[in-house]
Amino acid sequence: MCRWIAYRGEMTALEHYVTEPEHSLISQSIHALESMSSTNGDGFGLGWYGQHPEPGLYREVRPAWSDENLRYLCRHLQSHLFFAHVRAATGTPITRPNCHPFACSNWMFMHNGFVSNWNRLHRQVEMLIPDALYPSRVGTTDSEAIFLALMGAGIDHPLAAAERTLSTLTDFVNQGKPGDRFRFTAALANGRDLYAFRYAVNDHANTLYYRESERGIVIVSEPLDRDHNNWVCVPENHVVVALCGERARMVPLFHRLEAAAE
Amino acid sequence: MCRWIAYRGEMTALEHYVTEPEHSLISQSIHALESMSSTNGDGFGLGWYGQHPEPGLYREVRPAWSDENLRYLCRHLQSHLFFAHVRAATGTPITRPNCHPFACSNWMFMHNGFVSNWNRLHRQVEMLIPDALYPSRVGTTDSEAIFLALMGAGIDHPLAAAERTLSTLTDFVNQGKPGDRFRFTAALANGRDLYAFRYAVNDHANTLYYRESERGIVIVSEPLDRDHNNWVCVPENHVVVALCGERARMVPLFHRLEAAAE
Amino acid sequence: MCRWIAYRGEMTALEHYVTEPEHSLISQSIHALESMSSTNGDGFGLGWYGQHPEPGLYREVRPAWSDENLRYLCRHLQSHLFFAHVRAATGTPITRPNCHPFACSNWMFMHNGFVSNWNRLHRQVEMLIPDALYPSRVGTTDSEAIFLALMGAGIDHPLAAAERTLSTLTDFVNQGKPGDRFRFTAALANGRDLYAFRYAVNDHANTLYYRESERGIVIVSEPLDRDHNNWVCVPENHVVVALCGERARMVPLFHRLEAAAE
Amino acid sequence: MCRWIAYRGEMTALEHYVTEPEHSLISQSIHALESMSSTNGDGFGLGWYGQHPEPGLYREVRPAWSDENLRYLCRHLQSHLFFAHVRAATGTPITRPNCHPFACSNWMFMHNGFVSNWNRLHRQVEMLIPDALYPSRVGTTDSEAIFLALMGAGIDHPLAAAERTLSTLTDFVNQGKPGDRFRFTAALANGRDLYAFRYAVNDHANTLYYRESERGIVIVSEPLDRDHNNWVCVPENHVVVALCGERARMVPLFHRLEAAAE
Repeated sequence: MCRWIAYRGEMTALEHYVTEPEHSLISQSIHALESMSSTNGDGFGLGWYGQHPEPGLYREVRPAWSDENLRYLCRHLQSHLFFAHVRAATGTPITRPNCHPFACSNWMFMHNGFVSNWNRLHRQVEMLIPDALYPSRVGTTDSEAIFLALMGAGIDHPLAAAERTLSTLTDFVNQGKPGDRFRFTAALANGRDLYAFRYAVNDHANTLYYRESERGIVIVSEPLDRDHNNWVCVPENHVVVALCGERARMVPLFHRLEAAAE
Repeated sequence: MCRWIAYRGEMTALEHYVTEPEHSLISQSIHALESMSSTNGDGFGLGWYGQHPEPGLYREVRPAWSDENLRYLCRHLQSHLFFAHVRAATGTPITRPNCHPFACSNWMFMHNGFVSNWNRLHRQVEMLIPDALYPSRVGTTDSEAIFLALMGAGIDHPLAAAERTLSTLTDFVNQGKPGDRFRFTAALANGRDLYAFRYAVNDHANTLYYRESERGIVIVSEPLDRDHNNWVCVPENHVVVALCGERARMVPLFHRLEAAAE
Repeated sequence: MCRWIAYRGEMTALEHYVTEPEHSLISQSIHALESMSSTNGDGFGLGWYGQHPEPGLYREVRPAWSDENLRYLCRHLQSHLFFAHVRAATGTPITRPNCHPFACSNWMFMHNGFVSNWNRLHRQVEMLIPDALYPSRVGTTDSEAIFLALMGAGIDHPLAAAERTLSTLTDFVNQGKPGDRFRFTAALANGRDLYAFRYAVNDHANTLYYRESERGIVIVSEPLDRDHNNWVCVPENHVVVALCGERARMVPLFHRLEAAAE
Repeated sequence: MCRWIAYRGEMTALEHYVTEPEHSLISQSIHALESMSSTNGDGFGLGWYGQHPEPGLYREVRPAWSDENLRYLCRHLQSHLFFAHVRAATGTPITRPNCHPFACSNWMFMHNGFVSNWNRLHRQVEMLIPDALYPSRVGTTDSEAIFLALMGAGIDHPLAAAERTLSTLTDFVNQGKPGDRFRFTAALANGRDLYAFRYAVNDHANTLYYRESERGIVIVSEPLDRDHNNWVCVPENHVVVALCGERARMVPLFHRLEAAAE
C-alpha cells in the first residue's frame, strides 16, 4: 500500500500539494489514514514535466518525511503536471529503481496496489513487456512491469491499452488459487493528459479521490485535508480522464469494450 | 523519542532479541506502543562487544524494518553484551554519526530522550566535552555530546560521572525558561558492566524495563512481549547497575551524593 | 569491472584480507591497478559463512573506502570462508540487490565481468533461471541471473553446472554480432568448498590470482601486495578448485567434457 | 580536495555546465586532473537560486557519477546563479549536512581546501560562529564553520568579512606547529553577486579558473575542457568579484586592508 498524488493544471510549485497541506503527502508518509499500512516509509519519488518532453524524476530510498532534499525541490520545482508517491513496499526491495513514479519516453506512471501471488505471476507479467521496451525494465516491481506492459499494449490509446493490460492481468489472477487478488490504483500521464485508475480483482480497490477547480485537478489516494466535501470519491473500476484543456470526467472501466461487444 | 534494548549475559545471537520477539525492536521501529512517536524510522544502530576491546558498530540512516543487512547481522553476530537502537529524530540531521549507539575507546552509550531548547544549551553542553575527547565528537546530537561529557567527568566511576553530568545538565535546564525540560533514558557499558538510567527534569521520564534470568539481563524501552509480568519497571530517577558476575540492582540517582552530604 | 577476494582456511578476522593489506580490497576500491576502471566505487559487499548454514551478507551502495560500518564488521566478523567485492557497475543500477556477493540457500557467488550486448541476451539469460529459483531473482544484474542459472543447472556438481551454463552462454554470445563478448571471473562456494573461474569468449579474461599456505587459500582479482612471486596467476579458461581439506588445484574448463566426449 | 563550479549569468539549465562538458564536474568526480585526489566520490551537492530568495539544495552522500537524480535535476533545473560541488573528504564524516554547498538565509557557500591540524583548531573556529547563527551549524565540517564565521563577520560587506575571517584563521594556523597549513578556495553568493577566493597559508593554494562571456561567468576548480586558452587562471591570494550587472574583476586579498593601513 502506498500513497500518491497527481496534479495537472496551472504551473505551480510542488510544495503547495506535496509538503504544505494539513494532511500532505509527507504527513501521509508517516501517518496515512485510509490505508492498511499507516507508515509509507519505504522510499518515495517525484516526477514532473517541464520544458523537456521527458519528465524529470527524483527518487530516494529514505522516508519522505525526513528528506531535506525533497523539501528544497518541492519549493523550487514548478510544473503544470507532476506526480508524487510515498511507498510501502509489498515484497520487492527498497531501491531507487523500485520507487515510483516510473518514466518511459514521454510517459510517466505510478501505482498503489499489488498482485497477490506475485511469484506465480511474475514471469507471465514480464513476458507482457515487448522486447523493444525490455531495456527500460530497470527495477523489479510488479508496478514497473505493468507500466511497461501497458506501454506495449498501444499507449497511443491509453484507455484501450490499460483495459487490454488489466484484462490480461485479470485472467492471470483468475487462473490461480481462488483467493488470488489484484489491486490497481494508478496514475498515467504524457505531459498533457492525465489518467487515474481505480480497479481491483477479487478484492476492494484502494481509495481514490480528486478535486478540480479552474486552476487544475489534483487526484489523490486520500484527501489532503479533513474537509471531505471538497473531494470526489472515484468509484471502483472507474478511470478519471483529465485531457488537456478539458474538465475531468469519470469513465467506467471496460464499459467501452462491453459496449463495442454488444 | 527512540526505542532501544541492551543485553548482557551468555553469548547469544542478536536475533533472539532484536528481530525475533513478538514485539521486537524491529517491530517497535514501525509501531512502538509506549512512545509519543510510534514510528522510529530515522535510522538505527547496533553496537556489540566481541574479542576486540572496542565495540563494533553498525549504523544506518534507513529504517530498521527494511534493512536486509540488519537481519543478516543479527543472525550472524554473537555477543555477550550488545546494544540496539531505533531512532525517532528530535531535530538533528539523520546521518550515520547521529545514530546510536556511540562508542569511545571501550565504552558504548545510547540514549532515548531530549534536551528541550537545545539551541540555547547546545554551546554549554559542547563545552562540557574535554579537549582530549573533542576529536571523538563526530556527529551533532545532544546524545553524543552528553556521552562525551560523561566520559570526561570521570568514566572510571560511571555512576559518579553520570550523576555529575546529569546534575550539571539539570542546572543548565533550570537556568532557562520555566518550561524547559530534559529527558534521559540511557544505557552505558564498557564490555563488562552495564548501566541503564531513567531520569527527567521538569517532565516524566521515558519508560524503562528489564528482565533478568540465569542467562542474562535485557533492558528495554518497552517490553519485547505482551506479558508485562516478565518485566520490572524501573522507577524514575533510578539506575540499573548490572555489574559483571552480579545480579542487577536498582539504585536511586543522586542518593549516594545526598548520603555523602549528610 | 570489479575487484574481489575469496578466502577459505582457518577462522580469521576479515580485516586481515579486506582492509589491512598494503593493496587491500579497500585500496583497490579507490585505485585498482589491473583493471580497465581503476575506481570501483559503485557499491560493495561482504558475504561470510558462520554457524548458520546460509551465509551472511552485508551489501551497500556507497563506496567501500568510506564505509565505517565495513571497517567495524571486518574487525569483528570472523569466518573460515568469506567473499568481499567492490563494484564498478557496467550498466545495471547501483542498488543493494545488485551488489555482490549473491546468496541462494547455502551457496554464495560473486562475479567480475560482463556480457556485452546484455540487452539482446537479457531475456534469454532470465529464461535459464528455473521457476523454482525465480523468486530468488531480487536484483537485475547479469551476474545474479548467471548465478541462478548455474544453481539450476545442477549445483550439486558445481563444475559440471558451471560448464553447462558457460557453454550455453557462449552459444548465446556467438549467435550475436561478431564483436559480442563475455567475460566471467567468478567465485562460488557452499560453506565448505570454494571454486574460482577465469573464462572469456571473444575477449581476454579478467585477471585471477591465488596464494595458498597451511592456513588457507586466498583468491583475488589482483594481488594484495606488490610481491607478485607470492601469487599464482590462474590461466584463462581455468578453474581453481579448493575442496574442503584438500590443496587447491587448477583444472582447465571444459577439459572433462572434452575428455568424456573422446 | 574537492572540485566545484559556480555560475552566474543568463538563466540556463545546469546540465550545460555540470554534466555535458567534455571534462564536466561529473567526469571530475571520477577523474580529476589538477587535484591531489583524483577521485571525488565522497558525496556531492547542487545549490541554485530561483524565485525564492533562499537557494535550493540537493546534497547526497553517493558519488555524483552514478546519481540518476542528479542527471534529471541538471536537465530540469534552470538558474541564473548556481553552485555544484563534488567532495573528497578530508576527515569529517560523509553525511548530507557535510556536503557542499551550505546555505544560510540568502547566502550560499562552497569550499575546496582544508585546515591542517583541525583537531587543534576545531574549538577555536566553532567559537567564531556567533550565537545567533549557531543553530545553522548542522554539520561538522571545517568548511561550514568557516562559512558561518564569515556570515557573522559582517556579511553585508562580503570582502571585508572574508578578509577578517581569513585573517583570524591565518593567526590561528600560525600559532600552531611550523608545518600547519590552510587552503581556502571557495565560492560565496547571495543570489545576485558571486565571489570566489583563492588563498593559502604556508602552502600552495588550490587551483581556480574562470571564463566569462556576454552570457555569464563560470568559475571552476579546473577547466571544463582541454582548451586552457579559454580560461583565466586566478592568482593565489586573489578574489574574483562578479557583481550583478558588472564584468568580473580580480582583486588581491588584503590589498584594501594594507592600503588603508598605509
